[in-house]
Order: sequence, then C-alpha cells, then structure tokens
Amino acid sequence: MFDSIIINSRVKEFYTVNFIDDLVKQITKIANEEDNVFVVDEKISKYFATELDCVFKKSRFIIIECKEENKTLEYSQELIRRLIELNIRKNNRLIVIGGGIAQDISCFIASILFRGLDWFFFPTTLLAQCDSCIGSKSSINFDQFKNLLGTFNPPSEIYIYPGFLNTLTENEIKSGIGEMLHYFLSESIEIAKEVSAQYEQILSNRTLLPYFIQHSLRIKKNIIQIDEFDTSIRHIFNYGHTFGHAIEAISQYKIQHGQAISIGMDLANFISMSRGMISEDVFFEMHNILNKNMPKFKFDQSNIEKYILALSKDKKNKGNKLGSILTSGPGKLSKVFLDFDDSLKNLILEYSLKFQN
Amino acid sequence: MFDSIIINSRVKEFYTVNFIDDLVKQITKIANEEDNVFVVDEKISKYFATELDCVFKKSRFIIIECKEENKTLEYSQELIRRLIELNIRKNNRLIVIGGGIAQDISCFIASILFRGLDWFFFPTTLLAQCDSCIGSKSSINFDQFKNLLGTFNPPSEIYIYPGFLNTLTENEIKSGIGEMLHYFLSESIEIAKEVSAQYEQILSNRTLLPYFIQHSLRIKKNIIQIDEFDTSIRHIFNYGHTFGHAIEAISQYKIQHGQAISIGMDLANFISMSRGMISEDVFFEMHNILNKNMPKFKFDQSNIEKYILALSKDKKNKGNKLGSILTSGPGKLSKVFLDFDDSLKNLILEYSLKFQN
Repeated sequence: MFDSIIINSRVKEFYTVNFIDDLVKQITKIANEEDNVFVVDEKISKYFATELDCVFKKSRFIIIECKEENKTLEYSQELIRRLIELNIRKNNRLIVIGGGIAQDISCFIASILFRGLDWFFFPTTLLAQCDSCIGSKSSINFDQFKNLLGTFNPPSEIYIYPGFLNTLTENEIKSGIGEMLHYFLSESIEIAKEVSAQYEQILSNRTLLPYFIQHSLRIKKNIIQIDEFDTSIRHIFNYGHTFGHAIEAISQYKIQHGQAISIGMDLANFISMSRGMISEDVFFEMHNILNKNMPKFKFDQSNIEKYILALSKDKKNKGNKLGSILTSGPGKLSKVFLDFDDSLKNLILEYSLKFQN
Repeated sequence: MFDSIIINSRVKEFYTVNFIDDLVKQITKIANEEDNVFVVDEKISKYFATELDCVFKKSRFIIIECKEENKTLEYSQELIRRLIELNIRKNNRLIVIGGGIAQDISCFIASILFRGLDWFFFPTTLLAQCDSCIGSKSSINFDQFKNLLGTFNPPSEIYIYPGFLNTLTENEIKSGIGEMLHYFLSESIEIAKEVSAQYEQILSNRTLLPYFIQHSLRIKKNIIQIDEFDTSIRHIFNYGHTFGHAIEAISQYKIQHGQAISIGMDLANFISMSRGMISEDVFFEMHNILNKNMPKFKFDQSNIEKYILALSKDKKNKGNKLGSILTSGPGKLSKVFLDFDDSLKNLILEYSLKFQN
C-alpha cells in the first residue's frame, strides 16, 4: 500500500493519513481502547457488519443517518445527547466511519463538545478519501443556508481502506473522479491524462483508485499546509466549484458534486479561453479529459436565468461580481471577478451549445 | 494607563489587551469601519447610550440579553438569524461589548459562523476584565449540563475601559477580587497582600482596580501561553474553583463566582494544611486575606451531603476521586486526587466550624 501522508496543521500540529488493507485488524485495535466511542454511518454499519462486529460487541457506539437534511444543529444536538447517554468524557475519542456527511456532523460535534474532542476518521466514499478527509473543515446547514456554520478541526488519524469503495455506485465513483481531476489540473496535466487513459478500467476496477487518491491528497496537502483556514491560496481549489455548485443547486442536487464540477471546470476553461488566457489547443486538451466524466446536462433558455441567480448567491462573490477561478493552463489558476452581464450569460449558452451533451 | 499585553496563541498567533481611557474615541474609530457588526449587552447599551451613540446611529448592531439561561445553542441560533438579517459576511468582524455571558455567546457564534469570524471584545465586568477576556474559552450550557459545549477562540483585540466598572454592584466587584486573588496566590503572596491592605479603598474607589487587573492578566498570560487548551499546567487555575463551583451550585448561584472561590481557596488551603502541605502560619497568612472577601456561608448537616454530591459531579474528577488543586504555599500549587470518604466530609465541617461566617 502507499506511504502515510503527514499534514502540518495550525489546529493540531500535524495529522496523518494511513492507507490500510486490513480493516478488521485496525478496527479491533481501536475497539480495544475503552476511551474510544464509535460514530458509524448506518449504511456502512450494515455493509460491514462482519468487519465491525468487534465494535458492536464491546465498544460504545452510535449509528448516524447520513443525509444532507441531518447536517443541522438539531441533529448534532440529538447525537450529543446520545453520546452523553454513553457517558462520554473529555478524554474520550470519537472514531468516525462514514462519508462526507458523517465527517461534517462528527467533526462539528468533536469541535464543540467539551471544547473539543480528539477524533479519528475512516472515510468510506471516494470523495471523502480523495478530498474532504484532509483540510480540517466541517460544514453544517442553517435554515435555508447550505454550509453556513462550521469549524476547522482535523481528525488526528485518517485511515483509508480501499475496500469501502466497493460499496459505491458508479455515479459516486464519477463524482470522486471529478474532484480528483480538479486537484490534478490545479497542478499539471499529467495525472489527469492518466485518469483519462484508464477511465473505463478505473470504473470497473476500483483497486486502481488508491494510486490516484494519494496523488490527490498530496496536491491538496501542499496547499492546505500553507493556507489551512482558506483565506488566500487555498481559494484556487474553488476551480470548477463556483460554476459546479450552481449546477448542483439548479439540478436540485440530482447531479452529484464531482460530476457538476467536471462541467464547472470545463466552463471555467471555456471562459478562460474567451478571455485569451488559454489557446484552443489547451482548452481541448483539458476538455477531452473532463468530457469523459461529464453528466448529461445542458444550459438553455429554460434554466439559464436560474443558473445566473444561483451563481449570484455564491459566498465568494464581491459586491456585484462573480468570484471565479480561471486558468492560464493546467497548474496555472487565478482568481478573476466577472461581471454579471449579458456577455457572461451568452458565453455560458455558447459553451453549452458547443460542448454539452 | 498601562502598557498593552500581547498574548501568544495557537489559534490566532497573538492577540492584544489594550487599556483605554477614551471609550468614545475607540468606539467611534471602530464604528467607522463598515465591516464591523456590534454585539452589545442590553444593560450596557442603556448605561452607555451616550458613548455608544455613534454605534446606534451608523453601525449594524444587535442587542443581547445576558443571562445564564441564554448561554444555549437555541439563543445562539436566534442571534445568528439576527446577524444574517443584518447581512453579515465572512469578512465582517464582531465587536462584543459586555461581560462574561456576552463573551461566551458571542465567542461561540464567532467560532462557528462561516467557520470563524474575527472579533474584538470590550469586557465590561471586573470578572471579564481581570480573567475571562484572555484564555480563548467560550462556554455554552446544554440541557442540564453547565458549560458542556464550547470552543477556544480568542478575540483579536481586547479593550479594557475602567469606566465600565462603575456600573457594577459591590458584590460584582468582590466577585472579581476573588478571581484576582486566585491568580495572585497562584504566583506569590505579594500582590494578594496589597489587595488586603487596600481592600476597603478598592471597594470605594474603582480607579484602583486596573493596577490589579493588569497583574492578574499578566499571571494568567504566562500560563495560557504554555497551555492554551487547558490540558496540563493551566489546571492549576482550578485552585479554589472545584470547591467554589460546588458552593455556587448548592447556593443556586446566589453566591457569586469569585466570592465562592474565595471560600474555595480557603477550604483548599485548610485541606492542604491538614495534609501537612502548609503550616498553620501560612494557612492564616492566606486566610486573613481571603476572609475579607468571603460571603456569609456555612457548611452544616443541612447542606453537606448536597455539597459532596455537587463535588462528585466535577468534570475534573477521575474515577471516584475528587481532582483538586492544593497548595504547598503561595505560588506552589499541585493537583491532588482526594477520596470521597467521611474524612473529607468531616474536614469540610471542621473547616466550617472554625472559619466560616
């Protein structure tokens, strides 16, 4: 398996990503320490009932229902009550097994209960393994506002077990690939090309994924070590995200995150080309990679106004300008503020006519 | 006025305590920056209506009702909604004017809204000026549990304006004096003796207080810079607090914090003497100082069981042992775990008979 990755942090000095191939061994070891309390995604608790048997037999644990509607203060309070019933103490540690939603809720609780609990994380989705497990963020929805609340609080140990990837649908894998492509293209074209060359094999053989996961984490690590709290250079990772989030929103989240940002990057590249930042050749070099991972989706007169409205609500905007990350070629990202005018709208429609499925 | 105090922090690199004598000038300067949003204790907003006029005229502000029952997630959510109505943004800063409760609630909100907002703090009580304004902690009650939730998130600037002290009752001043005595005795006997010598003057002339406030903050600074997250040496500041908290609890919080810990320290000293850690001389040297600040309160058969029960719930306990800070003399504190047995109970009753009013 791959070497551990150590990430320097302002919050925790450092924390470690470990790649493991024996889940039972690792879980058993942790379950043997009575200070640990497990927080397990309901789906994972069923899929991996055998592997988690030692947890359910001898450890304190709670099962959490991982859906977007539960990323709230109310659900967090419910879980805190269940942890208190388990007699949780300040010197206890949460062991979280699940995807991004399990991470968001548990990390938030670990940030505020007893002014902070130690926690370990076993990410179970490709998105969580290749991206969210590092970077310290938790996100909680508040009223109608997505991810309005949150904290920076990384786990002290992360265990990546590739076997979890077998539980995922093809769309979930594609979503993770989209997120990884965004990291790869923020550095260079090379690894994105490898993904493209092996795209079909990756979808059918998930043992190919850890190689890309560790590359993705390595690229993210280099930036978050400099800007953990997302105030400067880490903004480049909004590449594809501003345009992608708005696609997710107008699709009512039917289009998954990483697939939406595949379109988002392609659109950002198209706008970059229109501004003379990249040549047609460079645009197509990236388009041919991204296109493989793009879902069926079109901008047209029926949704363009809604899309512009969704973009206008992005929290990275300044005044009446759209804060977007554009590219001068792979590895050369920069922040540009775009006017919300007809030319932006027409550019998006032109992009769609030419390049969308 | 006194020199600024700079405190090194893991959360914020450093933050600064500034002593100011012109409140209007400072507030006006801050109110002129439109990124600032004020959070003002209702009582202070009335007492200092003239000084805060520039805030109420041209700044965004919310008024908060500072009572213990409002240190909850529910009230925090209500305030977050009011901040959203004021169109608060990630790059805005909260300017908090109030005592410890205003600090707890606002610091908590500043920790979780947008994953963290910058904030300034104008502490208005003696307790907040001499103690809580530094040290990074916020505390939120949860169900029946006091201060179960919280964060570490210091303000980036603290402004100590002694004029606020004129709004306080004598009991509130005594409460602050108790907290300061606890810092002084954790270092040496010298400054505690000065307090004792001038005790009556201090109560009648509050301009004498800033001298003691800056000494108190200096002592606290030296420890929190080493152990900001309260995992080791900062525990010495529980001196008098374990015994004091339980007095507050059984008095239904009629006895104020700093007065309760004046008794708490005296009791801890008495137990230290009974264990041969200090001589009778040293006990009396401290007792004669603490006694001036001790409220009317007695342990007897009517409350001793309740008191022991309250002590048994202290979160610093380990197993069935009471985690308490005892003294080998001024400046020489250490943690000792005491058995909950009849000898502890008898010792407390003996102390009360001999030394309580």
